[in-house]
Amino acid sequence: MYAIVKNERKPGLTILDVDSPKLKENDILVKVEVASICGTDVHIWKWDKWAQKRISKIPLVIGHEFAGKVVDVGSAVKSVRIGDRVSAETHIVDKTCYQCKTGKMHVCQNMKILGVDVDGAFAEYVAIPEMNAWKNDPNLELEIATIQEPLGNAVHAILPSNSPEDIAGSYVAVLGCGPIGLMSIAVLRTLGAEKIFATEIVEKRLRLAEKIGADLVINPTTEDVVKIIHEETGGRGVDVVLEMSGAPSAIKQAFKIVTPGGRISLLGLPGEPIPLDISGDIVLRSVTIYGITGRRMFRTWFQVKGLLSRPDFRNRIKMIISHKFPMRDIEKAMDLLAHGEAVKIVLEPKW
Amino acid sequence: MYAIVKNERKPGLTILDVDSPKLKENDILVKVEVASICGTDVHIWKWDKWAQKRISKIPLVIGHEFAGKVVDVGSAVKSVRIGDRVSAETHIVDKTCYQCKTGKMHVCQNMKILGVDVDGAFAEYVAIPEMNAWKNDPNLELEIATIQEPLGNAVHAILPSNSPEDIAGSYVAVLGCGPIGLMSIAVLRTLGAEKIFATEIVEKRLRLAEKIGADLVINPTTEDVVKIIHEETGGRGVDVVLEMSGAPSAIKQAFKIVTPGGRISLLGLPGEPIPLDISGDIVLRSVTIYGITGRRMFRTWFQVKGLLSRPDFRNRIKMIISHKFPMRDIEKAMDLLAHGEAVKIVLEPKW
Amino acid sequence: MYAIVKNERKPGLTILDVDSPKLKENDILVKVEVASICGTDVHIWKWDKWAQKRISKIPLVIGHEFAGKVVDVGSAVKSVRIGDRVSAETHIVDKTCYQCKTGKMHVCQNMKILGVDVDGAFAEYVAIPEMNAWKNDPNLELEIATIQEPLGNAVHAILPSNSPEDIAGSYVAVLGCGPIGLMSIAVLRTLGAEKIFATEIVEKRLRLAEKIGADLVINPTTEDVVKIIHEETGGRGVDVVLEMSGAPSAIKQAFKIVTPGGRISLLGLPGEPIPLDISGDIVLRSVTIYGITGRRMFRTWFQVKGLLSRPDFRNRIKMIISHKFPMRDIEKAMDLLAHGEAVKIVLEPKW
Amino acid sequence: MYAIVKNERKPGLTILDVDSPKLKENDILVKVEVASICGTDVHIWKWDKWAQKRISKIPLVIGHEFAGKVVDVGSAVKSVRIGDRVSAETHIVDKTCYQCKTGKMHVCQNMKILGVDVDGAFAEYVAIPEMNAWKNDPNLELEIATIQEPLGNAVHAILPSNSPEDIAGSYVAVLGCGPIGLMSIAVLRTLGAEKIFATEIVEKRLRLAEKIGADLVINPTTEDVVKIIHEETGGRGVDVVLEMSGAPSAIKQAFKIVTPGGRISLLGLPGEPIPLDISGDIVLRSVTIYGITGRRMFRTWFQVKGLLSRPDFRNRIKMIISHKFPMRDIEKAMDLLAHGEAVKIVLEPKW
Repeated sequence: MYAIVKNERKPGLTILDVDSPKLKENDILVKVEVASICGTDVHIWKWDKWAQKRISKIPLVIGHEFAGKVVDVGSAVKSVRIGDRVSAETHIVDKTCYQCKTGKMHVCQNMKILGVDVDGAFAEYVAIPEMNAWKNDPNLELEIATIQEPLGNAVHAILPSNSPEDIAGSYVAVLGCGPIGLMSIAVLRTLGAEKIFATEIVEKRLRLAEKIGADLVINPTTEDVVKIIHEETGGRGVDVVLEMSGAPSAIKQAFKIVTPGGRISLLGLPGEPIPLDISGDIVLRSVTIYGITGRRMFRTWFQVKGLLSRPDFRNRIKMIISHKFPMRDIEKAMDLLAHGEAVKIVLEPKW
Repeated sequence: MYAIVKNERKPGLTILDVDSPKLKENDILVKVEVASICGTDVHIWKWDKWAQKRISKIPLVIGHEFAGKVVDVGSAVKSVRIGDRVSAETHIVDKTCYQCKTGKMHVCQNMKILGVDVDGAFAEYVAIPEMNAWKNDPNLELEIATIQEPLGNAVHAILPSNSPEDIAGSYVAVLGCGPIGLMSIAVLRTLGAEKIFATEIVEKRLRLAEKIGADLVINPTTEDVVKIIHEETGGRGVDVVLEMSGAPSAIKQAFKIVTPGGRISLLGLPGEPIPLDISGDIVLRSVTIYGITGRRMFRTWFQVKGLLSRPDFRNRIKMIISHKFPMRDIEKAMDLLAHGEAVKIVLEPKW
Repeated sequence: MYAIVKNERKPGLTILDVDSPKLKENDILVKVEVASICGTDVHIWKWDKWAQKRISKIPLVIGHEFAGKVVDVGSAVKSVRIGDRVSAETHIVDKTCYQCKTGKMHVCQNMKILGVDVDGAFAEYVAIPEMNAWKNDPNLELEIATIQEPLGNAVHAILPSNSPEDIAGSYVAVLGCGPIGLMSIAVLRTLGAEKIFATEIVEKRLRLAEKIGADLVINPTTEDVVKIIHEETGGRGVDVVLEMSGAPSAIKQAFKIVTPGGRISLLGLPGEPIPLDISGDIVLRSVTIYGITGRRMFRTWFQVKGLLSRPDFRNRIKMIISHKFPMRDIEKAMDLLAHGEAVKIVLEPKW
Repeated sequence: MYAIVKNERKPGLTILDVDSPKLKENDILVKVEVASICGTDVHIWKWDKWAQKRISKIPLVIGHEFAGKVVDVGSAVKSVRIGDRVSAETHIVDKTCYQCKTGKMHVCQNMKILGVDVDGAFAEYVAIPEMNAWKNDPNLELEIATIQEPLGNAVHAILPSNSPEDIAGSYVAVLGCGPIGLMSIAVLRTLGAEKIFATEIVEKRLRLAEKIGADLVINPTTEDVVKIIHEETGGRGVDVVLEMSGAPSAIKQAFKIVTPGGRISLLGLPGEPIPLDISGDIVLRSVTIYGITGRRMFRTWFQVKGLLSRPDFRNRIKMIISHKFPMRDIEKAMDLLAHGEAVKIVLEPKW
């Protein structure tokens, strides 16, 4: 089959004709009908420091956001059938570690990630464990089906635990309007946030944030984020901050705009340690901080499904898709993303 | 001043010219600009068994849903000023009992209720404790400002505690489409429920439920609620039931339609004990039940305020207002409510 | 192998020489080193209405509380090894239903129970799915290892959800001092409850409740439970009620002794519907009710393990074991339990 | 009356004869029967950078940990009577800000602190607002009554929110064994923690930590905290870290010893910004961080009261009191604390 492969430990990707995945007894085989590109894929393409350190399997079929049709199932598979439409939870877990046994599979101690540690979905076929399959409504548009996984990240950042009551009627700031930041805005609108602030340095994305539902957008390169948010909240600050950028300056702003007793979800990944004023910004202001990775398995997926049942929400989410390319144009797609000219790119299995 | 007064221990109400409220040092005096009728007021008008047992202060100015303008403040008042626009949290609490000291003021052991235990708001002026004042945005339409209190009941039933995550992407059933049931539907739509079922025996209200946002409405006099909901949820049942009717048959349905591990909020008040299958319906299915009274003080009010900031939500809520009358037509208004021909009636201070 | 078998649909049990369990690829085979008798086993022995209705597999090896040594593992088993010491979570779940996928495996829609739906542990060997194995510390005394499963019920009733803060410094009442009620008292002592009330009609068990750590024991046949608890709590009532008896009178008391805004865990199984004053006892007092079945998989097991690490706690728990018998004396053991003369009986695999 | 006063903006304290506090209508006047010294008091005595920046009222009667007898009450006081025994919640709040209105009084936006912003308790008499009074059991020993406030800090750090279930059966590390760290160990023992690790650089305090109930004590100057804790937890790490030292090295260790998905309470106050590896230590490991200040008003106080009802707990807490001095020896007491030779010093009102 054709696949987009990291073939050598250097920049770039290659389209190759490789063997189809071998099916283990607990796996299912999916014919990929659509896929989409995550920031992680761009890192692997660029072969930056993170990728050099993180990727050990070469050659590697990359990609993890996708949707497709089940064409075969292993002998032990019970809950998925040939013909089912599925996407995938991309965290492959051991089911037996302490985290898995206590409701925190998304931080399994022996986690493998699709398209990072094992062969992924930018291919004609992909094999995943039965338990990672998420059955899609056959009527769900493919371009939405493929981006449920990052949408789950957004939902998880907003509802990180069992006590997320503070969205209804809350002030929320989204720092960084990449795809997950933008998705967060759509989710916040749907969950009843009172006021949504969004910051971003790329003007085009700010305009998109506005269109998707942000009440006020701020460009930190030209405006004073902290001052504006304090003015707009009557000095109270925001109840919830979603830090989606990983930028050191945004992380510092997060602590200056959150109301005492409020909460911050950290999802963006800064490249280096950030000095934090623990005394003044965390302890004495009683702030709660959530590190966000992955999605709750599978509570978040049900939340995503429920949100997607509303046309209004689906329409907001679709605005995030900026381009569609055939798989064969992966190089062009990566290039656009690397230059900040695309938001979310959907790939069609045309080789 | 003019006021609508329960003057004798028998059916009916009288419009009287009475003394204006005397202001205590922690109180504020409000000129009533709008009010609205709660089911409780109808009970007092009818002088039914509940009212006979519950009401001890006669004469009593009734009414508790209102909005108005502050015209005077007691000497110790700090946070409210003359000219402020306010509505009222109607639970007047002692601030010192165990419940008040541990975040549960809404079940204060020495609670007094406005218009039930102390003189209320169907009058030219009403006095309330400073801490019960809720400041309104001066731009909030009066007819919405006055119904924030019952809207708070709806929000509290939906978000009864610190772990209400199950609304986003959940199946929810609202049993009973009186004003609070209908408001719940609007709130559920705004919080991202996946599917909202509503039951009601009055056809006109069912139609309204649909218009406000229920996905499927069911008339239990002609349809099989339990069967339909199981079919429509693929056998799973609903995650959340809001029992708003107090009808014994609805309470029984609640336990038959909730998914194992789901939750039921009970707000409707049945007139007599209801036999429950504790073993089969509660214990073995691990169901959680919340008794709902009042609103969290004042978390729920902030949630209400936040929800009302969205035009779409305000529009849904306004559909619940079926009539407007001058105060002098209180008898006509009560009559319509008693015969089920009105939903929410707004009163204007015209005497 | 020898096993205690329900061989016919009538009262009694038979010791038979039957085939050892056949091992499936995801199962483990355990040599039973100790077992203990649950109330469920007594019902099956008696062949009462519940048992007649519930049991469909005949012949059935009964029993589910046990500990033993792994002697064989199926081909797909990864996390358990021959030689491991284990007990079992007795709820065998499908892992794929809505409940299993959202952190509520203990109410799986397709649950099978060991010794009830499939062959159990009152035998020389028992087979269980790998995922149901709970590894014991090899130094844990066998008589404690076997009663971890019901101890998990007690812990689950006390910590039913993610917000159980109210134990530290709370007033708690345990209604019914059977084994799980008594275990609850030991747990409550270890979690920092301020005052523990216990009710029970069998005097011997009341004395045991006192010894294990109840602060005040009350016999409802001769004393006024509601009055005493109100006096002893300064009129406040208790924050938490654990209803462990299933007695209609106790269930009614539960609602009369709980403080407004408090919570009730229902674990006891009444034989018939109980009329509840929903308006006065649940809605207007804002009470929360948790139906309790099984244990959270496997958060509760880790909690049990942690509690058992303290010698003081182990000593309290051991007091509950009233008798030890060889398996061959099952009839004698059942007889003592049926006549209320035993509390928890441990069985040794002597045939 | 006599009082210990910060009289000039320089090191030291003076015992002066000053006017007794004037009683406002919502205040109560307390005759101080016992007091104790907090680290904050030592800072003010030393007049270090923090004190120079934080203290604006001079002269200032310092001190906030105390217990005493009510000798007068203001005209509006209802819930406290002359003769009552009280201690004080030392956070004086405005009751009207967003935080106060939504259950987070402990981070009131206009908070004043007793003995820091207003005259405190190292005096013959102290005046506090009625709502800050905590009534003590008259039988509670004075030396315990006075240290309930810091004990509340410990409880709040351990139970920071409504979802603190993870103490029962958890691994916990306490970093820093000052008075609050040591109190935490006592609380953890009482709440059912499975294993308690404690780190501290002063050997004497490590021995005390052991005596109070730590399972393993580690001196980071001579031992490898991270390595030892990983070994002792089978590689899992601890579920909960309580950072009580403010030392940069301990804060870094906190992130290395917490299990993925675990939580860290930060209470210690580092003097400068600390660089944190947000990507590796917080986001990708899904860690939750709670900034801890003050106590929940007044849920934490009820928890403290409940815990103190157990003799075993009281005995552990008493071990923390290393010295008793008359007020007149304040200089000597401060000196011992500044040199790390005392843990908690109780002051008797002898002048």
